[in-house]
Amino acid sequence: MTSGTFNSISTTVIRVAAAQVNTTVGDIDGNSQLIEKWIKLAQLQQAELIAFPELTITGYPPEDLVLYDNFIEANKTALRHIATKVKDIVAVVGFVDSEDGKLFNSAAVLHQGKIVTTYRKIHLPNYGVFDERRYFTPGDECPVISIRGIKIGINICEDIWEPIGPSEVQRKAGAQIIINLNSSPYQLGKHRHREEIVSDLSRRNNIYTLYTNQIGGQDELVFDGGSMLFDPDGKLLGNSPRFEESLLVADIKAKLTEIPVPFRQNYTNFHEKLSQVGKSSTIEIPIIKPQKKLSNLPELSISHLGRLESVYHALIIGTRDYLKKTGFKKVIIAVSGGIDSALVTTIATDAIGAENVIGVALPSRYSSEGSITDARELCSRLNVELWTIPIEPGHVAFEGMLSDTFKGTEPGLSEENTQSRIRGNLMMSIANKFNWLVLSTGNKSEMATGYATLYGDMAGAYAVIKDVPKTLVYELSEHRNARGSGCPIPQEIIDKPPSAELRPDQLDEDSLPPYDQLDRIIHMYIEERLSPDLIIQKERKVRSDDNVETVVRRIVQLIDKNEYKRRQAPPGVKITGLAFGRDRRLPIASVWEH
Amino acid sequence: MTSGTFNSISTTVIRVAAAQVNTTVGDIDGNSQLIEKWIKLAQLQQAELIAFPELTITGYPPEDLVLYDNFIEANKTALRHIATKVKDIVAVVGFVDSEDGKLFNSAAVLHQGKIVTTYRKIHLPNYGVFDERRYFTPGDECPVISIRGIKIGINICEDIWEPIGPSEVQRKAGAQIIINLNSSPYQLGKHRHREEIVSDLSRRNNIYTLYTNQIGGQDELVFDGGSMLFDPDGKLLGNSPRFEESLLVADIKAKLTEIPVPFRQNYTNFHEKLSQVGKSSTIEIPIIKPQKKLSNLPELSISHLGRLESVYHALIIGTRDYLKKTGFKKVIIAVSGGIDSALVTTIATDAIGAENVIGVALPSRYSSEGSITDARELCSRLNVELWTIPIEPGHVAFEGMLSDTFKGTEPGLSEENTQSRIRGNLMMSIANKFNWLVLSTGNKSEMATGYATLYGDMAGAYAVIKDVPKTLVYELSEHRNARGSGCPIPQEIIDKPPSAELRPDQLDEDSLPPYDQLDRIIHMYIEERLSPDLIIQKERKVRSDDNVETVVRRIVQLIDKNEYKRRQAPPGVKITGLAFGRDRRLPIASVWEH
Repeated sequence: MTSGTFNSISTTVIRVAAAQVNTTVGDIDGNSQLIEKWIKLAQLQQAELIAFPELTITGYPPEDLVLYDNFIEANKTALRHIATKVKDIVAVVGFVDSEDGKLFNSAAVLHQGKIVTTYRKIHLPNYGVFDERRYFTPGDECPVISIRGIKIGINICEDIWEPIGPSEVQRKAGAQIIINLNSSPYQLGKHRHREEIVSDLSRRNNIYTLYTNQIGGQDELVFDGGSMLFDPDGKLLGNSPRFEESLLVADIKAKLTEIPVPFRQNYTNFHEKLSQVGKSSTIEIPIIKPQKKLSNLPELSISHLGRLESVYHALIIGTRDYLKKTGFKKVIIAVSGGIDSALVTTIATDAIGAENVIGVALPSRYSSEGSITDARELCSRLNVELWTIPIEPGHVAFEGMLSDTFKGTEPGLSEENTQSRIRGNLMMSIANKFNWLVLSTGNKSEMATGYATLYGDMAGAYAVIKDVPKTLVYELSEHRNARGSGCPIPQEIIDKPPSAELRPDQLDEDSLPPYDQLDRIIHMYIEERLSPDLIIQKERKVRSDDNVETVVRRIVQLIDKNEYKRRQAPPGVKITGLAFGRDRRLPIASVWEH
Repeated sequence: MTSGTFNSISTTVIRVAAAQVNTTVGDIDGNSQLIEKWIKLAQLQQAELIAFPELTITGYPPEDLVLYDNFIEANKTALRHIATKVKDIVAVVGFVDSEDGKLFNSAAVLHQGKIVTTYRKIHLPNYGVFDERRYFTPGDECPVISIRGIKIGINICEDIWEPIGPSEVQRKAGAQIIINLNSSPYQLGKHRHREEIVSDLSRRNNIYTLYTNQIGGQDELVFDGGSMLFDPDGKLLGNSPRFEESLLVADIKAKLTEIPVPFRQNYTNFHEKLSQVGKSSTIEIPIIKPQKKLSNLPELSISHLGRLESVYHALIIGTRDYLKKTGFKKVIIAVSGGIDSALVTTIATDAIGAENVIGVALPSRYSSEGSITDARELCSRLNVELWTIPIEPGHVAFEGMLSDTFKGTEPGLSEENTQSRIRGNLMMSIANKFNWLVLSTGNKSEMATGYATLYGDMAGAYAVIKDVPKTLVYELSEHRNARGSGCPIPQEIIDKPPSAELRPDQLDEDSLPPYDQLDRIIHMYIEERLSPDLIIQKERKVRSDDNVETVVRRIVQLIDKNEYKRRQAPPGVKITGLAFGRDRRLPIASVWEH
């Protein structure tokens, strides 16, 4: 098929929309309603095409739900139903297609009540948090749709991260616009990288690219949106705000010409490699009813979020959506007077409102007066209700119950952990009683080194800052204080040296190196996957004391041997390049010692 | 290359050995020593070739350890070092090969100090507990080695589970023997299936197959061995005992002929499909020093384990190796007087000896006298030390600490969970004090329905029977009692109705359907992945009461909504076709309601 009869260059405008929505995994009915609602919104703005994020109908990532036949059937039924509602607009919707027992991560093109064509994702990510090869078979076709002579290639997420993929094939088949559907999770610095990828894709293919992404939290992932449109020179024309639902509507001036616009590709054997990606065909979309004069659109805007603001947003959305999507309204947080619980309480308040947050102070015989005052001051500034339950009666009872068993032993880690678990039990008892959730407050530096008590301070439904290193906890606290709308975190909390207060005069730095050093080592070992030898080399350039080797080896060993604790930790928002959880899969029983 | 100059049929004997060893993930040094030790053992028996299990050097599954460059380098260095020790025997050793930043699940052929050739696994499993596409690139070559004119094709595990794979290519290239290296984890009924696969492979290719498998526990997996040799008619000639280290040594009479032995294949386009698998080449292994007369071997034996005995073995090995490989010697178990803790205590005793097991009775105001007597009787029969710590002081303390907070509420689930968490805290405090591990005692029926307290009875390092449905708990207990060596589990424990004893007169069946029905539903929903509608249909054929629909929907809902608990559960031995853990990956925040 060829698409048009244009012999010389003319231009025509198509109004397209990227729907940056917040779907919920498994909520096929709810997601369908969301799709229908946003189609109407796009039509109000006279869009001729609306594109949704990857796997819109099932939510992303649906994980093993897709292995249930009835789930796949329900998602296909929903797609057919949505199609019947689509008139006078082309809707591109993500769903799971199936054929001969195989599943495909797909995008359907819906128009005038029908499924016009379907694209099946070719490049399936199977690293980091992604398990797509577990479920999906790669597609092998690169269809192009043609609307009034404007040719559009549709593909999905990872497809544009490979140097030669379906975009190139579609471009060769005449596409002037690429629509790329994403469910791309947030991590620090990733959006800048996405912009580079999409810019380069647009420039080297001399093509427009409309990039859609979802927003919202899903277990450990937060999707940050940032849908965007690039022109054929690789220039960003406009983007959607991050972390909120939004419709990006834009007019694209497409050139209609039979004379191919040149590629700006530089690969050897480019055309030969193209043929290995998949074959292409063009599907004509019958011309939509004669266009009325298009209304004026507000000018496209471009916004960028700073580093700390983006992390803070991710933590808010992750927490808010975990609660919403699991059906809980209220949370309780053990407020110790320390910086971690102060930040988590502030995030929770920003996420779901002070009226849905209860702080619980659980002072022990080792709690300093300052801790209690600081906890009180924090909650008062945030307008969060604070309950106080001294743990002394439990502490005494456990000492009594264990006195025979522990006779003749020195008090140590066991006695410290017992206190933390008394607190964990109190928090869980309250949560169970009132059907609330416990938010736990451990940070990444603690999760890494195991400086936390399993079933104690680790107890909870959601570990908000489990992927936030301690140094970033401080930065975020100061950022939040400087951000306007009050200065919720008392300076005393930021200034005092961190302590678990499980024995007299305990300080974190008795057990751990200074947090700036610790976080550097953790970053190099976890995110950069460097060997201890290399870390020592690099660390020696920063600190010249004799201790470096000992410290690095000790930290790496702590990280390795605490895998068992992390395996039983609650989920929390991934914000770094490599989070604990699905992102990092290590054996517990392992004797690898580098 | 062609291999020989034989114009007519003659036969020659090659003595081969399958080393069924217990490697440890990450223990490159230890695994290397193991390999060297077993090579010597094989040479004592005059074997000309010894084959080890898949990924022998790294242990299986090494998971994200392989993403560390220094781990890969260490494993390659170890391989080269082992090669230097290999003289006058051909050793086939599993390792991770790397090239251009890609990793390959590989088998090296070592001889006379050198790596003669390497095979790279072609079919990479990426389902169930397997994530091989996360790490490895598939190979595309099917080399054949030739020893004194006998041609042998080497491949790995999943490679023989596809109807047309490297075995067929190697066979076409003249192989008379296939050696297939495995790290195939145990599950109920799987070994029978393996036998069918290998028998069919041997028969349809008219070829000998030597199948090696490792043994031992690794986190949630247990490898059960059962290495075996099949003849070209698909007949099992001999196998290694399951669940123990063992060397299978056999003389294979290979026909040396230029006239190809016929395939017994029945696939359309068979030869065309073969060419897609990978290319083949033959590598001559210089003739090993003139053979002495071969000593007589004991006749090959064939043994099979019954269903209950195999599960029981898996639970013992899983527990024993988890302890050994994490470096712990002793365990404590909360012995309630119920059947679950009775079985776990018995398994632990069989695994590591009574002297390394401490039972702890934690009676409350709701514990029946029978429970305490039964716990005492169990431990006395097992010769396990029993400590008793009444939890009343803790119980009273928590009631006191929470009295203001809970004022005006009805006692319920929260108060029950609090008791269970007091026990969890006591167990963990003891374990932390003495550097022991807590074995938790929940079964699969509880894990599925969430009939367990997070941080309470779920607390522990290893959940021995988490994949054992309650009905199988009973079968195993009776099997163990009937198995000789004492009758450890008192009949009273088997006979009494199960109860959590967290409120007066509580019985499991107040909250759950009868366990035979519950386990059927769990099996259909989890392992068979049936929809609730289909489960209801099937269940109606077994039970005709009106309740079936309500019960099924309630159980499915319980399973779905308790994902958050399972996510924080300790690991335990996988024994069924689908265990909770890496095997089943479901979102916590999901509203799929079937």
